[in-house]
Amino acid sequence: MSKPYVLGIDIGGTNTVFGIVDARGQVVASDSIKTRKHSEFDKYVDELHTEVMRLLKANDAEDKIQGIGIGAPNANYYTGTIENGINLPWGNNVALAEKVSRAFGGIPVAVTNDANAAAIGEMTYGAARGMKDFIMITLGTGVGSGIVINGQVVYGHDGFAGELGHVIVKRNNGRVCGCGRTGCLETYASATGVARTAREFLETRSDPSTLRAIDIDSITSKDVYDAAITGDKLAKEIFEFTGKILGEAFADMIAFSSPQAIILFGGLSKSGDLLMKPLVDAMESNVMSIFRGKTKVILSELKESDAAVLGASALGWEAKYRAEVPAAEVAPANLPVVE
Amino acid sequence: MSKPYVLGIDIGGTNTVFGIVDARGQVVASDSIKTRKHSEFDKYVDELHTEVMRLLKANDAEDKIQGIGIGAPNANYYTGTIENGINLPWGNNVALAEKVSRAFGGIPVAVTNDANAAAIGEMTYGAARGMKDFIMITLGTGVGSGIVINGQVVYGHDGFAGELGHVIVKRNNGRVCGCGRTGCLETYASATGVARTAREFLETRSDPSTLRAIDIDSITSKDVYDAAITGDKLAKEIFEFTGKILGEAFADMIAFSSPQAIILFGGLSKSGDLLMKPLVDAMESNVMSIFRGKTKVILSELKESDAAVLGASALGWEAKYRAEVPAAEVAPANLPVVE
Repeated sequence: MSKPYVLGIDIGGTNTVFGIVDARGQVVASDSIKTRKHSEFDKYVDELHTEVMRLLKANDAEDKIQGIGIGAPNANYYTGTIENGINLPWGNNVALAEKVSRAFGGIPVAVTNDANAAAIGEMTYGAARGMKDFIMITLGTGVGSGIVINGQVVYGHDGFAGELGHVIVKRNNGRVCGCGRTGCLETYASATGVARTAREFLETRSDPSTLRAIDIDSITSKDVYDAAITGDKLAKEIFEFTGKILGEAFADMIAFSSPQAIILFGGLSKSGDLLMKPLVDAMESNVMSIFRGKTKVILSELKESDAAVLGASALGWEAKYRAEVPAAEVAPANLPVVE
Repeated sequence: MSKPYVLGIDIGGTNTVFGIVDARGQVVASDSIKTRKHSEFDKYVDELHTEVMRLLKANDAEDKIQGIGIGAPNANYYTGTIENGINLPWGNNVALAEKVSRAFGGIPVAVTNDANAAAIGEMTYGAARGMKDFIMITLGTGVGSGIVINGQVVYGHDGFAGELGHVIVKRNNGRVCGCGRTGCLETYASATGVARTAREFLETRSDPSTLRAIDIDSITSKDVYDAAITGDKLAKEIFEFTGKILGEAFADMIAFSSPQAIILFGGLSKSGDLLMKPLVDAMESNVMSIFRGKTKVILSELKESDAAVLGASALGWEAKYRAEVPAAEVAPANLPVVE
C-alpha cells in the first residue's frame, strides 16, 4: 500500500535541504544540514538520518514515507552514485542511493542531478505541468539543464545527458571553463559569466559606468543588475550580450528537440526584460524558420527555496532501488513485534 | 489479425522508391516512379497507387499489407502532412497520409521525414539494433538527422525535432545555407559542403593540387575523395577540415543526449579514415571529460538502396492513422459480398 509522503533531499554545495512532501506537492515540513561538515560520507549520512528522523517524528510521519528522492550535482540516475563529486567533499563514486536507503531501513531511493530534479519538479508541480517536451535551464553560479522528451527526463545511455551549460558557444578564444575546456555556455550565461563579462567590458572599454565605482575583482551579477535597472548603459549592454549568447544557444537546442518551452530557473533568470528581451530576440532571429515563434521562454513557477526539494521528492514516488538491509541492522521500531 | 507485409515508401527529390517488406526486414520486391512527373499531388498519388498495386499483384500480396510507412522530406509524424515541401513539386501542407491511405482503401499510414525513417530502419534492422539512445546523421547533399532517446524517435512538440544539419557551427561570416540562415553544419559537412570547401581552399590558397585540373565550379565531393586517396595533400586537408567541424558539432550533441552511438549514413560517410579520423579526434578532444571515449561513431549497416524503404516500412507496422473511405470509393474487391 502506498504511503502518504515522500522525502525530497537536495544536496547542494553548501546546504543539504530536505522536506516531507505530500501527494499534492505541499512541503509539509523541511529542514537542512551543512553539506561539508563531514568529509567522510558515512558520517554525513548518519547526521542526515538523525536530522530527518527528528523532522519525521515532529510531524508524526515516521512510517509514512513511500520513497526518497535525492538531487545532487553529478548524481547518476542509473547507478545511484555521485560519480564525479567535484563540488562535494566525499570524492568520486559515492554510493549515494545505497547508503541512504540502508540508513533508512531499506526505503526505496532514486537519485538524479540537481537540474534534472528541477525539471521533474517543474513538470510535476510547476510551469511545465502538462508539457511532454521542454528544457529546464538553471542560471545560477553555473548553467545546468534538465531535458524532458516524450514526458521522460533524458538521461542518455550513461545517465549523464543534459549538460547544456557545456555546449561550446565560442570556438576560438573562448573563456576557460571549470570543466577544463574553453568557450562553454556556462562561462558566459551564468551569474559568474555575467560578472566576467562586466570585468571584460570595464577593462577593454573606456565609456563611463557606475560599475567603475566598484572594485573590479569583486563585481557580481547583482551589481550589474542594480546598475542596469538604474539605466547604466554599459550594464544594460552586459545583459544584452548575455541574452544574445543564451538565445543563440537556445536556437540550436530547438533544432535538436523542438521543445514546447524552455523554462528558466535560478538567480539570473529573475533579471526581467534586461535579459529576456535580448534572449528571445536572438533566439527567434537564429532559429530555423519552421521553429520560429513556437517555443516559449518562460520562468519557473516554483519558489526557489522549495523547487529543488520538490523536484527531488517527485522522484521519490517512483523510486524502486532498495538497499538490502540485514534484519539486525533494522531499527527495532521498524520490526514487527513477535511475542 | 496482423498481415504478413508492410509497404515502405521513400519519397526523394528525384525518385519515389517503394517496397514490400516482411516482418524480418526482407525487401520482398521493390520498384520506383519519378517524383516530379506530376505537379498535382492527386495525380502523383494515382500513379503511385497504380504502380504499387501492380507490384503487389505480381507478388500475390494485394490483401497482405498491414500498414504503409512513408519517409519524405519535411513530412510530419503528428499531422501526416508535408508542411514545407521546398524540395518537392506539390507546395506546402500536402495531406500525404490522408491521400495515400484513401487511395489504398483505408490502410493505416504513418509518415516521417527521411532521416527519421533511416533512424527507425537502423534501429529495427541495422547497426542500432538493441540501442535505446543513438543519433543517425545522414551525410548526403545536405545533413539530416534522426534522434532516438529511450528507444523512441524524438519528434518534439511539433513533429519537427532533429534538424541537426542546421545547428550553427560558425557564428560569424558563416556560409549561406538553403534554410535562409548562415553557418549551418550542413553548409560544411555535406557532400555539397565538401565541394564548397574545395572551391574555397583552391581560390584562397596557392599550393599545388591535382584538383586544380578540374573546372572549379564543377568540383564534387567525389573529385575531392578521388584526389585524397591518391595522396593529394590539399584534398586530404579538405576532409580534415570537414571532419573537424563534424566532430566539434558531435561533441555538443553528446552534451545534449549522451548517445551510445552516432551512426553515419549517406555518400560522404563512405570516405573511410579520411573523414573518420579527424572527426573522431575532434569529437574526443572537444567533448566533456565525463563523456570521453563513451560514444561510438559507426557506419550504417543498411544497404543505401534499401535503407530508406526499410526505415519507412518499419513505421508501417505501427501505423494507426486511416483515412475514412466512403463505401462507394472502396474498390469492389475489398468489400464483403452481400447476397
